[in-house]
Amino acid sequence: MIGNILDNLRKIVPLVHCITNYVTVNDCANALLAIGGSPIMSDDIEDVRDITSICNALDINIGTLNTRTIGSMLESGKIANSLGHPCILDPVGAGASKLRTETAKKLIDGINFTVIRGNISEIKALALGAGAARGVDADAVDAVIEDNIDDAINFLRDFSKKTGSVIVVTGAIDLIVDENTAYAVRNGRPEMSRVCGTGCMLSAILPAFLCAADTPVSGALAAVCAMGLCGEMAFSENDGNSTYKTKIIDELYKLSGETLEKGAKYEVR
Amino acid sequence: MIGNILDNLRKIVPLVHCITNYVTVNDCANALLAIGGSPIMSDDIEDVRDITSICNALDINIGTLNTRTIGSMLESGKIANSLGHPCILDPVGAGASKLRTETAKKLIDGINFTVIRGNISEIKALALGAGAARGVDADAVDAVIEDNIDDAINFLRDFSKKTGSVIVVTGAIDLIVDENTAYAVRNGRPEMSRVCGTGCMLSAILPAFLCAADTPVSGALAAVCAMGLCGEMAFSENDGNSTYKTKIIDELYKLSGETLEKGAKYEVR
Amino acid sequence: MIGNILDNLRKIVPLVHCITNYVTVNDCANALLAIGGSPIMSDDIEDVRDITSICNALDINIGTLNTRTIGSMLESGKIANSLGHPCILDPVGAGASKLRTETAKKLIDGINFTVIRGNISEIKALALGAGAARGVDADAVDAVIEDNIDDAINFLRDFSKKTGSVIVVTGAIDLIVDENTAYAVRNGRPEMSRVCGTGCMLSAILPAFLCAADTPVSGALAAVCAMGLCGEMAFSENDGNSTYKTKIIDELYKLSGETLEKGAKYEVR
Repeated sequence: MIGNILDNLRKIVPLVHCITNYVTVNDCANALLAIGGSPIMSDDIEDVRDITSICNALDINIGTLNTRTIGSMLESGKIANSLGHPCILDPVGAGASKLRTETAKKLIDGINFTVIRGNISEIKALALGAGAARGVDADAVDAVIEDNIDDAINFLRDFSKKTGSVIVVTGAIDLIVDENTAYAVRNGRPEMSRVCGTGCMLSAILPAFLCAADTPVSGALAAVCAMGLCGEMAFSENDGNSTYKTKIIDELYKLSGETLEKGAKYEVR
Repeated sequence: MIGNILDNLRKIVPLVHCITNYVTVNDCANALLAIGGSPIMSDDIEDVRDITSICNALDINIGTLNTRTIGSMLESGKIANSLGHPCILDPVGAGASKLRTETAKKLIDGINFTVIRGNISEIKALALGAGAARGVDADAVDAVIEDNIDDAINFLRDFSKKTGSVIVVTGAIDLIVDENTAYAVRNGRPEMSRVCGTGCMLSAILPAFLCAADTPVSGALAAVCAMGLCGEMAFSENDGNSTYKTKIIDELYKLSGETLEKGAKYEVR
Repeated sequence: MIGNILDNLRKIVPLVHCITNYVTVNDCANALLAIGGSPIMSDDIEDVRDITSICNALDINIGTLNTRTIGSMLESGKIANSLGHPCILDPVGAGASKLRTETAKKLIDGINFTVIRGNISEIKALALGAGAARGVDADAVDAVIEDNIDDAINFLRDFSKKTGSVIVVTGAIDLIVDENTAYAVRNGRPEMSRVCGTGCMLSAILPAFLCAADTPVSGALAAVCAMGLCGEMAFSENDGNSTYKTKIIDELYKLSGETLEKGAKYEVR
């Protein structure tokens, strides 16, 4: 199933509008090109209306949030909603600052996100109002592990009901949860957290998968498995994190539907 | 001839002021260092006057255009003009949004660009007012192919007469056209379009070549051949797009005047 | 000694707030992750108060200075000072424009920087008011060489007394100078200047070393030796500058305290 989604993505070449941070933006663009989509970055309020309209999907990432672009994000999200385009939110650093937490909440209030993707601390900050202590990385105490996986799913399901979005939490175990379905994905490697932007890249390719899938939850599952699997295939014990980053994007470029289908490690919960 | 231009560039080490987008800016800087120039990025209206003045050339790229920097672009362009420095415009996404199209036109009205470089859809949007449907990539229907190459040159020559700029259009076949001369370049590979920023990198190194050449059209020809040739030499069937990007910049670094002279594939039209 | 600082850094994983330029920001983030720290980038005045407070150290880099973020820099610096966090200034391009020179001076007036790190032309511009002619690179006439090394140290010592900061000047010979101590470091390679961002990366990892060291001057020494040594180990005659950049970050990732201790080439002056 998920292999077909990738094959379909490569056929339709979705054009994805990214309003994203300036730290990982180049990797997001190359990851999107690698997986078979086409990126366009635009964040000025005067520009985004037109750009959102000609695109097929929208990625909003608040990694270097500034007050200039909050209005652009809201405007783009509303247009994407009105056109029925998939749109996703990556609430980078929610919980780490009031501006990030409140902006993410405002975006969730004003836009119907198809998917919200973050680490567990970010999602907790949005769902519970708890503050994170480790900036843009998840707190160790929040980590999803075998022992608390069902609790985590129940928590995410509640947040999915409240928001109407598929909730994707990435970490040692990735979870994809909506009102009716939950998947746990066990692809990926811990070393991916030493590469800046693997989360952002996932959020950038996710909208392209959503364009190619029958349901948001299956599109999100395919994207999460793809990113994790490429992280596995790209890994070599002797590489540093910069070579590892290059190879992860290369693997996205070479990934076939068949390889994805065979390598995906997920289970329905 | 064009080999000598590169040799000369490496001798004079032109300092190039880039007002460019935040997506590909690092690759532009490293491409400029690779080819033998020296980059300086600056986009604040309070900063650009001084920076343009101490540089030898100017690159204006509207890839992540925002209203804050339009004034900086105009101001820098006028200073470059008054100092007789080469300056080039890369109208990324012209035709994809009203802001981009109108800003590119305003820049062309207010600044005498030595070279305007874009894909064929962007140039058509500026010359004819037509809108592009594929964001920052060229429309397939617009592509320059063997059958329409003379029509394309005539069209670009008219635009060159109107603007006073050398017009450079890159694609499967690259064209360099001014009032009196036209070159078609057949270097490069289709896979370069799967690497984010090959167009931006060309626009960043182009001003350095203009500093080193006797005429704008010969400088532009040398830059276009250099970029395409490096794209050929860097290519390997088994690489992904991220490794390919790294190797393209590496080839710019290693490129000698002699290799460029031998590898350039161009014809006068 | 300096090997232990790196070992300690990797144990404590310092969280470093970077207000930095958009040219090299991704490399700064990956360099920080490589060396064992954790980066968070944030530049909006509404965001930086919270972010500085949850971090352990601050890096301010004016490489793409704009008027929007000057207030953020001042605010973050004052908070870092009040919390006793190490903070460093990289005055990129001071001397190349009035805005850069005056902003760097204003930052030095308003913030107690633990370390100020630049090339010799930037530091001269700040200490003497002299203007640089080569943009973001050091002027050849200013270079620190064997013949003028003691004069340079005396000059930097005066600037250190005036500012209360450790002054770090990088170039062919690196100098680390405060009121009482001076080190000359002979690690590194000239080819590092053909890689965009090696200075910025050093400034990004420097605060993490300061968090792990007993004294600012020893932390700065360890960081400078680490960057230079990785530049040596990453170098291969046949590589271009893009591969070289990737390998420099990789070497930071793999660097052990023991290797740093053995490879560091420094002398007390």
